[in-house]
Amino acid sequence: MDFAYSPRCQDYLARLRQFVKAEVEPREADYHAALKAAPWQQPAVMEEWKAKARAAGLWNIFLPEAEWGAGLSNLEYAPLAEETGRHPMLPEIFNCNAPDTGNMEVLVKYGTQEQQERWLKPMLAGEIRSAFCMTEPGVASSDATNMEATAVVEGDEIVINGRKWWSSGIGHPNCRFVIFMGLTDTSGEAPKHQRHSMVLVPLDTPGVHIERMLASFGKLDEPFGHGEVTFTNVRVPVANFIAGPGRGFEVAQGRLGPGRIHHCMRALGAAERALELLCQRAVSRTAFGKPLALLGGNPDVIANARMDIEQARLLTLKAAWMMDKVGSKGAMSEISQIKVVAPKTALSVIDAAIQIHGGAGMSDDTPLSALFAYCRAMRIFDGPDEVHRRVIAKIELGKYLPKSH
Amino acid sequence: MDFAYSPRCQDYLARLRQFVKAEVEPREADYHAALKAAPWQQPAVMEEWKAKARAAGLWNIFLPEAEWGAGLSNLEYAPLAEETGRHPMLPEIFNCNAPDTGNMEVLVKYGTQEQQERWLKPMLAGEIRSAFCMTEPGVASSDATNMEATAVVEGDEIVINGRKWWSSGIGHPNCRFVIFMGLTDTSGEAPKHQRHSMVLVPLDTPGVHIERMLASFGKLDEPFGHGEVTFTNVRVPVANFIAGPGRGFEVAQGRLGPGRIHHCMRALGAAERALELLCQRAVSRTAFGKPLALLGGNPDVIANARMDIEQARLLTLKAAWMMDKVGSKGAMSEISQIKVVAPKTALSVIDAAIQIHGGAGMSDDTPLSALFAYCRAMRIFDGPDEVHRRVIAKIELGKYLPKSH
Amino acid sequence: MDFAYSPRCQDYLARLRQFVKAEVEPREADYHAALKAAPWQQPAVMEEWKAKARAAGLWNIFLPEAEWGAGLSNLEYAPLAEETGRHPMLPEIFNCNAPDTGNMEVLVKYGTQEQQERWLKPMLAGEIRSAFCMTEPGVASSDATNMEATAVVEGDEIVINGRKWWSSGIGHPNCRFVIFMGLTDTSGEAPKHQRHSMVLVPLDTPGVHIERMLASFGKLDEPFGHGEVTFTNVRVPVANFIAGPGRGFEVAQGRLGPGRIHHCMRALGAAERALELLCQRAVSRTAFGKPLALLGGNPDVIANARMDIEQARLLTLKAAWMMDKVGSKGAMSEISQIKVVAPKTALSVIDAAIQIHGGAGMSDDTPLSALFAYCRAMRIFDGPDEVHRRVIAKIELGKYLPKSH
Amino acid sequence: MDFAYSPRCQDYLARLRQFVKAEVEPREADYHAALKAAPWQQPAVMEEWKAKARAAGLWNIFLPEAEWGAGLSNLEYAPLAEETGRHPMLPEIFNCNAPDTGNMEVLVKYGTQEQQERWLKPMLAGEIRSAFCMTEPGVASSDATNMEATAVVEGDEIVINGRKWWSSGIGHPNCRFVIFMGLTDTSGEAPKHQRHSMVLVPLDTPGVHIERMLASFGKLDEPFGHGEVTFTNVRVPVANFIAGPGRGFEVAQGRLGPGRIHHCMRALGAAERALELLCQRAVSRTAFGKPLALLGGNPDVIANARMDIEQARLLTLKAAWMMDKVGSKGAMSEISQIKVVAPKTALSVIDAAIQIHGGAGMSDDTPLSALFAYCRAMRIFDGPDEVHRRVIAKIELGKYLPKSH
Repeated sequence: MDFAYSPRCQDYLARLRQFVKAEVEPREADYHAALKAAPWQQPAVMEEWKAKARAAGLWNIFLPEAEWGAGLSNLEYAPLAEETGRHPMLPEIFNCNAPDTGNMEVLVKYGTQEQQERWLKPMLAGEIRSAFCMTEPGVASSDATNMEATAVVEGDEIVINGRKWWSSGIGHPNCRFVIFMGLTDTSGEAPKHQRHSMVLVPLDTPGVHIERMLASFGKLDEPFGHGEVTFTNVRVPVANFIAGPGRGFEVAQGRLGPGRIHHCMRALGAAERALELLCQRAVSRTAFGKPLALLGGNPDVIANARMDIEQARLLTLKAAWMMDKVGSKGAMSEISQIKVVAPKTALSVIDAAIQIHGGAGMSDDTPLSALFAYCRAMRIFDGPDEVHRRVIAKIELGKYLPKSH
Repeated sequence: MDFAYSPRCQDYLARLRQFVKAEVEPREADYHAALKAAPWQQPAVMEEWKAKARAAGLWNIFLPEAEWGAGLSNLEYAPLAEETGRHPMLPEIFNCNAPDTGNMEVLVKYGTQEQQERWLKPMLAGEIRSAFCMTEPGVASSDATNMEATAVVEGDEIVINGRKWWSSGIGHPNCRFVIFMGLTDTSGEAPKHQRHSMVLVPLDTPGVHIERMLASFGKLDEPFGHGEVTFTNVRVPVANFIAGPGRGFEVAQGRLGPGRIHHCMRALGAAERALELLCQRAVSRTAFGKPLALLGGNPDVIANARMDIEQARLLTLKAAWMMDKVGSKGAMSEISQIKVVAPKTALSVIDAAIQIHGGAGMSDDTPLSALFAYCRAMRIFDGPDEVHRRVIAKIELGKYLPKSH
Repeated sequence: MDFAYSPRCQDYLARLRQFVKAEVEPREADYHAALKAAPWQQPAVMEEWKAKARAAGLWNIFLPEAEWGAGLSNLEYAPLAEETGRHPMLPEIFNCNAPDTGNMEVLVKYGTQEQQERWLKPMLAGEIRSAFCMTEPGVASSDATNMEATAVVEGDEIVINGRKWWSSGIGHPNCRFVIFMGLTDTSGEAPKHQRHSMVLVPLDTPGVHIERMLASFGKLDEPFGHGEVTFTNVRVPVANFIAGPGRGFEVAQGRLGPGRIHHCMRALGAAERALELLCQRAVSRTAFGKPLALLGGNPDVIANARMDIEQARLLTLKAAWMMDKVGSKGAMSEISQIKVVAPKTALSVIDAAIQIHGGAGMSDDTPLSALFAYCRAMRIFDGPDEVHRRVIAKIELGKYLPKSH
Repeated sequence: MDFAYSPRCQDYLARLRQFVKAEVEPREADYHAALKAAPWQQPAVMEEWKAKARAAGLWNIFLPEAEWGAGLSNLEYAPLAEETGRHPMLPEIFNCNAPDTGNMEVLVKYGTQEQQERWLKPMLAGEIRSAFCMTEPGVASSDATNMEATAVVEGDEIVINGRKWWSSGIGHPNCRFVIFMGLTDTSGEAPKHQRHSMVLVPLDTPGVHIERMLASFGKLDEPFGHGEVTFTNVRVPVANFIAGPGRGFEVAQGRLGPGRIHHCMRALGAAERALELLCQRAVSRTAFGKPLALLGGNPDVIANARMDIEQARLLTLKAAWMMDKVGSKGAMSEISQIKVVAPKTALSVIDAAIQIHGGAGMSDDTPLSALFAYCRAMRIFDGPDEVHRRVIAKIELGKYLPKSH
């Protein structure tokens, strides 16, 4: 048992922090100003950052497959992901932002050579972006088998129909395609989890229509955005199936494991940043003759935040270690655990930081309300808390109930 | 002891609900559409609603002074305030929105006849609006004696300087004046709570400048808005003091009691609406073969929401009853109690409703994130939780510690 | 709406407090010393107290039926019940202790004249005590239909078999009979809730055997005790049915409503006493140069306790008011609500008081661990939290789901 | 970073579990029966277990110093300590129970050769036991400088006076001496933390009087017990100082670090056992037609317990790792963190297990109420939560405040 990060991880971490400090922070205001002026365009500074990050060897660091990316293990990448949670624009700089990471991972694992040439390579190069279309407005998506959109085979084409929303990243000017998930076996003959497929759909295919961009807790998250999208008799070749028809859930499972670790570590990075801001504010403002830091229950708030973050981080790192050792399936309980724990922890710390900041914490003068919105959404996307708790309990009870229930 | 609302209260409540159902809800979409098209203009429908509400005798119902308003007690108005918390635009319809209510109350109690003629009467008529400038960006406003802005007497003028923010309502096209609070006794000779004054400042006085409108958890709350305002050598006649120089804290105390009850009841109205939306969603959506309402811990969520709301409402009503019986000072602990309890309760219920709604709960398709933002801000404005807990503990310990500490 | 106690209630309350101060507290140590010397015998001082309480008109004050008891409404009795929660021996002094109160209530409502003569009158006189045998060790008693003990009719006798536990009060030297609940319709032909009966069983009937007394969180609660009892072919005449065979659940429902209000108010009395002890300790002990009362988060602890108690008390009083106005059935949600809220509140306050007391709080030098044990048990007896939350949610959802589910 | 236990740790863990299963569990009932018959005598079976454990090489495994004990690191011992938390009698079997472990550690580090011969060696052999006398009834012991008992030098003797309580283990028939802490520099000239001393006091020294044994949440914890002890002009030679006069706090600090890890891991062992009992009960009992395990919010309870335990264990293991790497001082925040987190976690899980068990959970038929009492006390002994949170916050804020405060 060893709680120290590996030397390779430490090296990456030091370089990434140095990069953020030297390259990103001095131009952060430029980025926001550009977005304010043109919310749905790529700020020029982002492409500069990306080029520099790539040159600095801080590129595709999320990808454990060494032939495609940095070849770091999930456990080694986790602390880097945490670091990128501190500022919302950081993941894109290192080509490590959702949902592209998940989509790249899927194409690495399940993509045909042709799919990899056409879609994966430009993504790995940071030239194009993508979205993921799974959640639907009309049903409870916490139970993914509720999905109603269809991807039916007609001859050598897949015909796609349905309405999706929370398709994140679809507003980005560089977004070129989506991975769409829908029902292929409309007869209901196949087992419940073998009826759906994932399909590559170029964004400019006729019949694909972005209806609107959704605000999430008041934020549109430009330039990425969260789209509501309709698919009306959209036709793509059957070669656009990922891994083949009926394998949608199988692909989704593989896709979500690492993504959950990334999200959770970013949430903890957000929590660490919130705690820093909290402490800085608490030592610099005074009320009733004392710095806020020493007033009433504030030290308890700080102590609780520290304890919660430490615990959630260790659990997330252990989940990453298990994923490296025994794979997503063997780490299923741990991954569900962190998916509940990390955003809860982050929300609690961010909320405390908002409170210490008073009105400033509510405003856009601090990143706190944006971090809150991101972590609050995390309690819903990629499986709501309720579903993850159910999974954890089922695995726990499995030790006592020999048969499934 | 009697837990039934008075017949007069019940009558008002029935009429108000009927008004909302018959007049407001059918045109709610018009209101939002108008605001979307012109965020900082008064939608025409609002003026129509106001006229109808006035005609229906549902006007200035917050005002216990019968010569100026409806003459309902705080206890009788409280359930009506709750009702207006269900939709954010309702309070204005009945001329019962903050901060105008507090400002009207102040002018009723402390205004000179001239002040009442010029400012109070048009407000009571719903012709003009106002703002309240107390919180400052540069200091911890939880300790109001930190206030740095000044309102100094020079001859027969008051010279005002300083920067205020979270001046709510200042963006409204009908806003005509602010009540400004600042330091008058810059010598520090007067007792700590007798150095500040409240001053009436017409919005068009030279030197008053709205720097920007602040987003609160991503919401600008148009057309009211929350402004950051600078005052640079602003000059108004000494006749614009409210109650006289040095009486700012005295006036503030009287102002805040009823206002806190209004805010708390509105928060509980928001909570009731969230619980309704939660239940409606929970019975209409299905996952894993069951309505969400019966799934896992969801019944507990609903039960907890019901218990929390019931308790918070009873406490708030009791605080209103005490204010009627023994005044703001005698009800000080109860008022601080509800100020902590009501938004906490509302936030917990609204958050649960967001969770049940999934992505829809995060979006603007439901009012939930706006209600959350309002109630979250309430944990900060009019005294943060921390200050109110301090007050409650001090009063509680006062039973055991004969002397103050 | 009126939050003041009725004059009659205030009069009783003042007299009861005076009685406790003048008569009980000076001899409390005698009571405990007697019990320590002879745990399962009635201390002489208790009989003296009872005689004095009766003489003072503070007797059977729980009983709303004026022909049998004080004739106070549930709402008027509630604050008196709260007062008796401050010391564990108080309820017996006023002949208001569980389970005798519930048993007396049952006999008042459902008893035959013969049953009333033989059992009710001596109980009302404080001459005998009783127990209630419902919970069983072998099944989940949260679902009362799980009950396995039987009360089968054979000719003109009822034959009783089964094992019961947590039969409170059965260890008291004055205990003379139990009310036993068991399955009469073993055929399962009657509807699920019409198969069980309540039966009066004299404690000295052959076949009744107290197997052992149970400790509850380390306390035996002498001289009352909680017994595990076996019934082996116990025979009593059919005249011992209460309300007739198959009406067990009907009687149980009526029995439990007022009892839950009594328990909840006592829990809040325990909470108030704990808060008093907490504050007294907090102002009298010093650490790090300050009284504990002003140290760190302790004022928050005190404020939270005050808010929680106030809310729980108001809710409980409202439930009592509803029971008076619309009966147990109409107040079903409220009664379930307080059954969850009151012990939870009390436990939280008592736990905080233990913490402030340090080791003393854990020991028997303060009443805190005994009060904790009582309130912790309350989350289980008379329906566990889980069942009550279920009831509350069902009623809440009933507003949205026209049919039962 | 590696989350697997070391091979040596795994070997010990396997052997310890096997020992408990093969040797302890079959005779657990004998142990309790012997204690019931003679609460303050050593059950014969305990001495048999001890002999077997020693023969099996499972002896003094807590002691990192290889020349005296097993030589396992704190990190390696931690999982073994967890295992011994499952049954209250286990630590003694392996000679690893508090306060003997702390006292042995102190004598290993600070004892003179003579002290080691006379006291340490028989303790390491399991022949004698000891107690630790620090906490006092008359002051807030959370601030140890409040201590009022004295250990003053007169010639070549130390004269000891004062009253101590919660001297755990002092009731054990094998207890032969106590380590007493008291004020030596009564002049107050030395710095605040250099005025107190630790002194070895044989239990049979004239003037030492055990006044009574204290119940902790209703449990006397026989045969160890928690004593209240008076010291009246007790005289021992100056050779009985540990580490010399005035070094009491220095020794105490070194003593408490490992002890806190042991306690926390035992608490987590208790939590794991509670969760096992909870799950076993939940799958074996039925209500409303379902096993409790699948009913309502129960799966959430199980999931929450699993998440909380995992996190608390990882944090505790990390604290142990830090203690091994950088010592008690460098691990100060982490040790304070686990001291807050571990008992809180355990209490929450145990409480949930009690609830699922219903009345059985309150009774002595399950170990739950005893485990609860142990973990509840842990929130007070070795520094209450409040003090540890203060430490954590101070260290956290130290990153932002260059100077101490």
